[in-house]
Amino acid sequence: MKVLYPGSFDPLTLGHLDLIHRASVLYEEVIIAVLENSTKSPTFSVSRRIEQIKESTKELSKIKILSYKGLTVECAKSLDVDFILRGLRAMSDFEYELQIAHTNRSIDKSIETIFLATEARHSFLSSSVVKEVAMFGGNIDHMVPAIVAKDLYKIYKQGDI
Amino acid sequence: MKVLYPGSFDPLTLGHLDLIHRASVLYEEVIIAVLENSTKSPTFSVSRRIEQIKESTKELSKIKILSYKGLTVECAKSLDVDFILRGLRAMSDFEYELQIAHTNRSIDKSIETIFLATEARHSFLSSSVVKEVAMFGGNIDHMVPAIVAKDLYKIYKQGDI
Amino acid sequence: MKVLYPGSFDPLTLGHLDLIHRASVLYEEVIIAVLENSTKSPTFSVSRRIEQIKESTKELSKIKILSYKGLTVECAKSLDVDFILRGLRAMSDFEYELQIAHTNRSIDKSIETIFLATEARHSFLSSSVVKEVAMFGGNIDHMVPAIVAKDLYKIYKQGDI
Amino acid sequence: MKVLYPGSFDPLTLGHLDLIHRASVLYEEVIIAVLENSTKSPTFSVSRRIEQIKESTKELSKIKILSYKGLTVECAKSLDVDFILRGLRAMSDFEYELQIAHTNRSIDKSIETIFLATEARHSFLSSSVVKEVAMFGGNIDHMVPAIVAKDLYKIYKQGDI
Amino acid sequence: MKVLYPGSFDPLTLGHLDLIHRASVLYEEVIIAVLENSTKSPTFSVSRRIEQIKESTKELSKIKILSYKGLTVECAKSLDVDFILRGLRAMSDFEYELQIAHTNRSIDKSIETIFLATEARHSFLSSSVVKEVAMFGGNIDHMVPAIVAKDLYKIYKQGDI
Amino acid sequence: MKVLYPGSFDPLTLGHLDLIHRASVLYEEVIIAVLENSTKSPTFSVSRRIEQIKESTKELSKIKILSYKGLTVECAKSLDVDFILRGLRAMSDFEYELQIAHTNRSIDKSIETIFLATEARHSFLSSSVVKEVAMFGGNIDHMVPAIVAKDLYKIYKQGDI
Repeated sequence: MKVLYPGSFDPLTLGHLDLIHRASVLYEEVIIAVLENSTKSPTFSVSRRIEQIKESTKELSKIKILSYKGLTVECAKSLDVDFILRGLRAMSDFEYELQIAHTNRSIDKSIETIFLATEARHSFLSSSVVKEVAMFGGNIDHMVPAIVAKDLYKIYKQGDI
Repeated sequence: MKVLYPGSFDPLTLGHLDLIHRASVLYEEVIIAVLENSTKSPTFSVSRRIEQIKESTKELSKIKILSYKGLTVECAKSLDVDFILRGLRAMSDFEYELQIAHTNRSIDKSIETIFLATEARHSFLSSSVVKEVAMFGGNIDHMVPAIVAKDLYKIYKQGDI
Repeated sequence: MKVLYPGSFDPLTLGHLDLIHRASVLYEEVIIAVLENSTKSPTFSVSRRIEQIKESTKELSKIKILSYKGLTVECAKSLDVDFILRGLRAMSDFEYELQIAHTNRSIDKSIETIFLATEARHSFLSSSVVKEVAMFGGNIDHMVPAIVAKDLYKIYKQGDI
Repeated sequence: MKVLYPGSFDPLTLGHLDLIHRASVLYEEVIIAVLENSTKSPTFSVSRRIEQIKESTKELSKIKILSYKGLTVECAKSLDVDFILRGLRAMSDFEYELQIAHTNRSIDKSIETIFLATEARHSFLSSSVVKEVAMFGGNIDHMVPAIVAKDLYKIYKQGDI
Repeated sequence: MKVLYPGSFDPLTLGHLDLIHRASVLYEEVIIAVLENSTKSPTFSVSRRIEQIKESTKELSKIKILSYKGLTVECAKSLDVDFILRGLRAMSDFEYELQIAHTNRSIDKSIETIFLATEARHSFLSSSVVKEVAMFGGNIDHMVPAIVAKDLYKIYKQGDI
Repeated sequence: MKVLYPGSFDPLTLGHLDLIHRASVLYEEVIIAVLENSTKSPTFSVSRRIEQIKESTKELSKIKILSYKGLTVECAKSLDVDFILRGLRAMSDFEYELQIAHTNRSIDKSIETIFLATEARHSFLSSSVVKEVAMFGGNIDHMVPAIVAKDLYKIYKQGDI
């Protein structure tokens, strides 16, 4: 089975990475799709985000990484995946993710979204929290892969704001 | 009884429309009040939103449509309505709507807000989701009235971004 | 307009009473319907609960009090009310109440449920909390009408358990 | 892939059935496992529940139905399934299901639970709501498969309580 | 400062224990108060629960363990503690705990309840989940202190039900 | 004990003030720390916010007011407080506050966050709601201290927008 794991990954956290590891055990192929969102100004460029994911998943063999624009269902169909995968951390995730999953099914009934629960110890992690901590020079080594930590410290020059 | 149904309606969805239909069965007069919010940049002008609502409710006889600025309670008082009507879709709605209802009552105890539950099949619908789907040329015919779909496709030129 | 306010009222709290007062301002007639639930063993008999409500609402003129068995929608139809009224306190209420409202509409589309937000200062009140406090002789005068407080203290003989 | 769909199914609802249909499209084999819970007194015997599921899924080819006692993870391991499947309807589900999924993973890391969102129109359905409506002779044809409706009406003799 | 940590502790979990450890760092004295609830049939007697807590906290010096009946606020007042301590795991906790805290303050304004967030990795733990897993012989060593695990296995004779 | 109460306080509400009063009863010293957030454009300058808090807490003797930049845990450590204090109003608060508390503990295990439940009657209050009401000349005297009301009316020139 082929699964699509879409997201902004701006940047990749250890929560994302844990989900990717678990999905790669369950499925033959896991396609990580980085959303190019023209309306938001991202912290990292799409190509840098792909680099970060590539580096952090290099020991996994069943991973493919790409970027996409537009609707996730269209991306899913064009790649002919069996379904979309999303992680669930907390309540607010749940409501938002359910809305997106219902919307996607209402656009194309053949595209299902399946959910995996994020590890309890990563349930407080989000890309925006990581960036806030890094911005003020706080330690983020337990939150993101090494390459992301390095990139973030470079951007925020460790508390030098 | 006279009821005020306030909102941004930017744009009107089938969820809003379902509520308007049900309210028009329950009450003698339903006043749909479009909020002119000077601080947000809307997708449609207030006059276009009123046009969309007018067109989508033309077979209903007990509807009045207008725009307002400022506090919803002031609008409610000046129109001498019996209460404010709001729809409840999901948890996040609930918390926000309760906050607004409590705030309104704390400003003027005589103005009550009553809630109707949105139809289950519309519970994932929101104006912002509709716009996101339309922006990338996805099908929105099951989400909004025909006139809104046409207007949105015109704006987003179907995926041409 | 005629509205049905159904519930167990075992016993009536100040939260219920506040809702009854507000509904009696909004509507011509408020029918308080006490559910006879044969499967649960109640604290007060249905006739005592009706007595408590009668005593606590005696200064209100638009109130009718009765008991019913079976489905709330059937009760609503047989009394020819305009809709069912329910209070919303907290999140857990919201989910349960929405489920009941959707179920009722799925049985009979013509019966709507409208919701009013419970006053913030009563949002922690429930019949079961009141009973727990009364059971151990705690003060409940700010939670229930005088007649209910008296009845509860009689039952629990003030901490004498 | 082989998936385990465990539950009480006391009785099967159209919400469960929708999930079974969707799972049977996604996976090679869907094992429906009816929990024999010795501590609760069920409405239907395990064998009757299996009968109801068998009848309601007879047009599906990839379904297997069985009963189990004890831990769901043990059942999953002994059947060598790829993962456990559960439906998510509402907030309260979410919290409970996440707790169970985390508990199961803490017992055996190799057993994953994946979630599918219940169809919006079934999101208010639960076995206990169905039984409450049936108990008082309300219409449940839009809530459960035909065989379950018949069985429930037989038990509750349509409002004759 | 002196703090009261009340609960059923039927039985003590590692989530409770983590909270006790953290509270004993923050405050001069932590009084663990085991509720004798005459209306529920407990798994362990109050004296056994006290034994389990004593054994599991023996390396902590600032702990006092006792049992109480009736209202927690009365217990708090009679022990002259500075406040009540409770843990927050999940949403459902939150709503229930807030209700209890508000109720307690409404009975006696001088008694405050403070909350600590349960460690993320223990956020799925509850006494009832532990018992369910133990009942069927599942591993609970990562959920409860050693003495509790031994006691539970003894009761449930490891899956022999 | 010394406690840090951090926040934006843009502006201080009666909900914040109630928490400060209660904390000043519980602890020897309450340090109110106003966050200087360089990325958001505030309604009031940090110095004006400090002025508002000073004026509104002048009858309290155990209060210290200061501003800080960067990570709250760093601020807490440099001031050598015993813990961080935060208020909990509603569900959405809860999730966000837990995330922040977990993040802070993951950065520095020695810094605990304790929570107090906001008074029920203030549970609908937030700085942003207050500003919205004031912007349109609504009454906010029951929402904020007198000095804040005066400052807000000055800014918004009472509905004159």
